Amino acid sequence: MTTIEKGNGVLTLVNVFTVDQDKQDQLVDLLVRATNEVMKRQPGFVSASIHRSLDGKKVVNYAQWASLEMFEAMKRNDEAASHMKAAASLATFDPILCSVSETIGAGPR
Amino acid sequence: MTTIEKGNGVLTLVNVFTVDQDKQDQLVDLLVRATNEVMKRQPGFVSASIHRSLDGKKVVNYAQWASLEMFEAMKRNDEAASHMKAAASLATFDPILCSVSETIGAGPR
Repeated sequence: MTTIEKGNGVLTLVNVFTVDQDKQDQLVDLLVRATNEVMKRQPGFVSASIHRSLDGKKVVNYAQWASLEMFEAMKRNDEAASHMKAAASLATFDPILCSVSETIGAGPR
Repeated sequence: MTTIEKGNGVLTLVNVFTVDQDKQDQLVDLLVRATNEVMKRQPGFVSASIHRSLDGKKVVNYAQWASLEMFEAMKRNDEAASHMKAAASLATFDPILCSVSETIGAGPR
């Protein structure tokens, strides 16, 4: 389970992949495998949550890293870079680095 | 605090807003206000987490709804539509409806 909380200090990476519908499953599998085999062992990795769009055309990775520096260090890791390259062969992607401004749950109705 | 969990049954809406850097704060404020004043009272609303990108050019709303039907019903609500219109006057946006395939936390290193 992943938690989103204001002021948690983590770097959030929202990575939106655009993919052919017939390759969505393959991309989800690749990202799950890459996260389990490589990313989760990298220093500063907090979590990754892989989402598939209902229309089959997107995959969203909502990932958390302990800091921007640790995220940048991961990108220089050969094993991680090779997995990102494999993802790039299946899809285009648009990574957004961000921080949590506010999280709001359901209130009294 | 928001939680992301596989098999939670919620509809996830990842809405990526593209905005002029000098309007990012204004858009964040508008989304937080709209969520507190209108969205959180709508049937089926679970949570909204508003993120600002480090480069100032994006805002990401990671939102959860109890079902697709309840999300669609919200869009037909006049008050909600008026808030979405206000957001559209500040930014373009690209909403992605999705479900959680997998969530992976940091493991032993």
